[in-house]
Amino acid sequence: MKKELKPTTAVVPCPVVLLSVAGEEKSNIITLSWVANVCSKPPTVVAGIRPQRHSYEMVKNAGDFVLNIPSIDQIDAAEFAGTKSGRDFDKFKECNLTPVPATKVQSPMIGECPINIECKVIKVENAGAHDVFTAEVVAVHIDESVLDDKGRFIPSEARLFTYLPLNGEYWSLGEHLQA
Amino acid sequence: MKKELKPTTAVVPCPVVLLSVAGEEKSNIITLSWVANVCSKPPTVVAGIRPQRHSYEMVKNAGDFVLNIPSIDQIDAAEFAGTKSGRDFDKFKECNLTPVPATKVQSPMIGECPINIECKVIKVENAGAHDVFTAEVVAVHIDESVLDDKGRFIPSEARLFTYLPLNGEYWSLGEHLQA
Repeated sequence: MKKELKPTTAVVPCPVVLLSVAGEEKSNIITLSWVANVCSKPPTVVAGIRPQRHSYEMVKNAGDFVLNIPSIDQIDAAEFAGTKSGRDFDKFKECNLTPVPATKVQSPMIGECPINIECKVIKVENAGAHDVFTAEVVAVHIDESVLDDKGRFIPSEARLFTYLPLNGEYWSLGEHLQA
Repeated sequence: MKKELKPTTAVVPCPVVLLSVAGEEKSNIITLSWVANVCSKPPTVVAGIRPQRHSYEMVKNAGDFVLNIPSIDQIDAAEFAGTKSGRDFDKFKECNLTPVPATKVQSPMIGECPINIECKVIKVENAGAHDVFTAEVVAVHIDESVLDDKGRFIPSEARLFTYLPLNGEYWSLGEHLQA
């Protein structure tokens, strides 16, 4: 038996990303879950950001950003950067995260995150409460500790986690499934 | 130490959805991972679909679809529906899945999936290899077996899984994390 709910954002599980962006005075970090790969070639991502957020104008001005994929070690930073404003806090400092120069964009990468995805904004479109930024991936950096000796990604080392908007919980990944 | 990779679709972890769509002769299912919630109000999703896929024209013609969130029980169906074409197979039949009438759209829901998200297409835009469909969520159905007696979502009962495009693996969810 199914229960019908009011329309809601029910796609699960969702990625959790720390978006880092360059600013005139200081760089900022915002945690987002309304993010996805949407095109393989060129590799393209979308990110939904509310115009009220401090990072919104920063991304518009910078024209680029980095999507940093956190491990469980950065879960408190993800919570902080998702609920506090860059107007009030230096989030790199408050979260003890290290800005590292990117290679293709001006926005900084977060050194501690195992995966950093450099992105250049292509367009911004309003979808209601959120604007949707479409951006092309121009470089990817991945920590050698989460790659095996053949350069293959080792999820158990990356210790990724996911967000479930249906109940607001973060969950770790479990085990590799064979389809 | 980080290793720089060529630009690639590196956002992880990703949702796995079975998109079901009505057709003139028969309905079809396509497995997608380039999918996300992108706006909270109105609840809005995006889905990247290659124009070569059989479901592409079907979604354009129908103007609606259902995003069905599978449990691990449907992982073989997800693999089949993601790699075989609706031109060659009746995927509902091949995967032993049950089409169930939706309430707000003409496309059918997949009865076996614990969560069904009815969506109406708003626009389609090319992003390269994939076109990005933006759609508004018009109804959500959730199996009572994955809700507690207060109607709250129980992830451990839903037995969700995720896709990691960095290495092509499916992973189960592990445990609830406290931020």
